[in-house]
Amino acid sequence: MHLETQWIVGFVDGEGCFHVRVNKHASMVLGYQVLPEFTVVQHERDVKLLHGLKEYFDCGVVRKNNGNCMAYRVRSLDHLSNKIIPFFEKHPLKTVKNIEFHKFKRVVLLMERGAHLDSSGLDEIRGIVEKMNRKSAV
Amino acid sequence: MHLETQWIVGFVDGEGCFHVRVNKHASMVLGYQVLPEFTVVQHERDVKLLHGLKEYFDCGVVRKNNGNCMAYRVRSLDHLSNKIIPFFEKHPLKTVKNIEFHKFKRVVLLMERGAHLDSSGLDEIRGIVEKMNRKSAV
Repeated sequence: MHLETQWIVGFVDGEGCFHVRVNKHASMVLGYQVLPEFTVVQHERDVKLLHGLKEYFDCGVVRKNNGNCMAYRVRSLDHLSNKIIPFFEKHPLKTVKNIEFHKFKRVVLLMERGAHLDSSGLDEIRGIVEKMNRKSAV
Repeated sequence: MHLETQWIVGFVDGEGCFHVRVNKHASMVLGYQVLPEFTVVQHERDVKLLHGLKEYFDCGVVRKNNGNCMAYRVRSLDHLSNKIIPFFEKHPLKTVKNIEFHKFKRVVLLMERGAHLDSSGLDEIRGIVEKMNRKSAV
């Protein structure tokens, strides 16, 4: 399914999510795991659009989400930094989701430099994440 | 604020709503009022996008919705049939919302012909509306 660039931007402005989870994880050096993720969730009736996104970005997976919803997800640091982030830098989101995107990008760039593997870098990431996905912080 | 055509299609695929209400209304000839409405609701932080839609379509209003949300609404039969419907005919929605759109269009066309003013037309409209906005019916 062919998707136009600006259609993708508009759709992600409505339905996309740039999220970073910081989980406690005993086997990690500092005891925490940082998981950035780009997702678009849709009712299973529109799964073909999620496959369209996967095809367009040439990365990620389409998987079952909750209930009768499906999700397109990109978790690979390489794909986030080389495919997803450059796309939304070139074609900016128009909603305030663009602010989330820039925080997300900052986390991914820090992780690429291995910042999540030392405590000051991890603190910086946790500071950014605390301000993300909080309605009042935007 | 300039909005690209395909951005609007993508955003409405995510956030738009084509809705028809059929209300009991004592002063109407048949006792019912048919109210088709195109709406896009956003958090007030993104109200500039709703004004962008209003500017693009050159019709409708931006008003307070529930809580801290704002809504762009088009209710005029003239504006629906001459501005909103032709746009989404020329630039089709890609989600299953396109099916809702076509039912909505059918209702608006029937109303333009005054079908809602006689009982068989009103029955036809009510039959279409019953099948709209029902997840299982799509």
